[in-house]
Amino acid sequence: MRHAERRAALRAMAGERGFDAVLVTDLLNVRYLTGFTGSNGALLLRTDGGDVFGTDGRYTTQAGTQVPDLELLVERNTGAALAREAVRRGAGRIGFESHVVTVDGLRALESVLADAAAGGPVPELGSVRCAVESLRAVKDADEIDALRRACAVADAALAELAAEGALRPGRTELQVGRELDARMLAVGAEAPSFETIVATGANSAIPHHRPDSTVLTEGDFLKLDFGATVDGYHSDMTRTLVLGHAADWQQEVYALVAEAQAAGRAALAVGTDVVAVDAAARDVIAAAGHAEHFSHGLGHGVGLEIHEAPGIGQLGAGTLAAGMAVTVEPGVYLPGHGGVRIEDTLIVTEGEPELLTLTSKELLVL
Amino acid sequence: MRHAERRAALRAMAGERGFDAVLVTDLLNVRYLTGFTGSNGALLLRTDGGDVFGTDGRYTTQAGTQVPDLELLVERNTGAALAREAVRRGAGRIGFESHVVTVDGLRALESVLADAAAGGPVPELGSVRCAVESLRAVKDADEIDALRRACAVADAALAELAAEGALRPGRTELQVGRELDARMLAVGAEAPSFETIVATGANSAIPHHRPDSTVLTEGDFLKLDFGATVDGYHSDMTRTLVLGHAADWQQEVYALVAEAQAAGRAALAVGTDVVAVDAAARDVIAAAGHAEHFSHGLGHGVGLEIHEAPGIGQLGAGTLAAGMAVTVEPGVYLPGHGGVRIEDTLIVTEGEPELLTLTSKELLVL
Repeated sequence: MRHAERRAALRAMAGERGFDAVLVTDLLNVRYLTGFTGSNGALLLRTDGGDVFGTDGRYTTQAGTQVPDLELLVERNTGAALAREAVRRGAGRIGFESHVVTVDGLRALESVLADAAAGGPVPELGSVRCAVESLRAVKDADEIDALRRACAVADAALAELAAEGALRPGRTELQVGRELDARMLAVGAEAPSFETIVATGANSAIPHHRPDSTVLTEGDFLKLDFGATVDGYHSDMTRTLVLGHAADWQQEVYALVAEAQAAGRAALAVGTDVVAVDAAARDVIAAAGHAEHFSHGLGHGVGLEIHEAPGIGQLGAGTLAAGMAVTVEPGVYLPGHGGVRIEDTLIVTEGEPELLTLTSKELLVL
Repeated sequence: MRHAERRAALRAMAGERGFDAVLVTDLLNVRYLTGFTGSNGALLLRTDGGDVFGTDGRYTTQAGTQVPDLELLVERNTGAALAREAVRRGAGRIGFESHVVTVDGLRALESVLADAAAGGPVPELGSVRCAVESLRAVKDADEIDALRRACAVADAALAELAAEGALRPGRTELQVGRELDARMLAVGAEAPSFETIVATGANSAIPHHRPDSTVLTEGDFLKLDFGATVDGYHSDMTRTLVLGHAADWQQEVYALVAEAQAAGRAALAVGTDVVAVDAAARDVIAAAGHAEHFSHGLGHGVGLEIHEAPGIGQLGAGTLAAGMAVTVEPGVYLPGHGGVRIEDTLIVTEGEPELLTLTSKELLVL
């Protein structure tokens, strides 16, 4: 049971910081620590064991299946119920997720604790800001397996779309985006990982373009940035194609971004500072005189969220560890003309990084 | 421009409560007040006018298109930038969304305000908890139009699926769910409104069942709870069918739920207490001896979120107003046997409520 191992890691962290218990209320963190996928659940993790999982009546059956190894507490307001439980079990110092709990939520929690203490000592609250997120940055074998499958779904969906001739002049960005989404669902995605980006012609120079009724036109770039969610884990991939014939300038920009992307992938090694990883790719683009045309960070962690720790950029902090799942996605955007981004999802390992998005990165001319 | 009217309503509310400015950071509230659909944006609304919209460099172009009528401030940390702007423009009392801003977020905001005041008076922060949400509960004409289209997409998707014979014995819940999702996308949804529920046989007795590999079987109930998102607005509809031949008990349960649902719809009138609306349907079910088999509230508001104000249930509060968009969704769930839920999305008006989900509520035998 991976979830028990994950809770053990958090328990150790909480103990070191002097907490008797931690109230985990972020739904993705709860999912990570318990396996629960419903829309209302919280975990009371206790430093000396005896964790309690809370949810409401809609999820009693589901909790029994997904979280069979934890004591279950069924109540509508799960956070309050678990806080009372912590008091009942004598917790003196309780950690809470101050990056997730709202100002109103903290006030309510304090009031519940005071009521539950019933004149006795009121437990002290302390922040365990991003504790679970820091554990989540390093993926275990089950997570890497889910990421592999999420990337494979995206690869398969794009391959089918290309084979069907769906990426041809005359169609609109919106049509292509919807078909790519539908194809991912058909191939096994629970949902697209994020709003699929389809950007053609001058739109490809907009890093975050929303697909619209722009028509795919011969000779234009076609940039596709998309991903699939499988078992809650996200994939993230960008490929840029050319429709018809690639002009010299398109081949040059593409070759430059491909070289930068390869340099970024090659820099993914255990212990490397994330700023150095970003620089490895950015330097290639800057040396070609396009520094100002690469306007975003090189990549980001990916897992239960599409963007999570570690951030890989000029303002990032920290070093890579084995088991981190990250994207490498440099781009060069020439306003009014077009842009290229190439993005993979990879796992950092003790050796070469493992590439999860396997679609070819040769410049595909359709 | 509806957005200006919406901002005027919030401005009046803020002025009455003695605020010089309101910092709106909830993304959906920002969308409601400005039209911006990106993933990073905030609004500084000033009581005496001169509002400022903030976003980061990825969205400069999009902000120009979607929010052409507001002054634009481009900075990575939009909340902090707008807080500094509020100080610069002399705000003495600033409202913030305490139900959205996290404990860490408030600390950061306080620190930004103190720095920006530079030794001068530091503005006071006060909660404008759910102010925008209360405005959002009553839909304007643009919103009702979007809701109509979202409901029409769901209606069309189900009709196509049924016409194709996709709802037949031998298929799995997961297959049906994925096809319904794909069909909604093909018919014009941006995304499903929520994780589509497909529940057959005994699973139909689980109000919130997640589709799995259960096979559709002759003689079983098939419950479909799903919706489409169009222009950001959600639809919500549940229909329960029978595969093959409806047994007497199935016809009885269905007729009971249909009667309760009609009673709930008939109770949707301006000024009616939401508890009374819930009771109108619940009493029908209780009178038939099934009170304990209807384990959830009768309905909820729907709009930019799938669940929003007003809640219609035994623990609800408040009365209905013209322009509210709500669901009416009673159910009777017989554990181990099967369950029926019938749900519509409707608009409360001065006269009869307007029904937006038009799929027939006759017991459909496929």
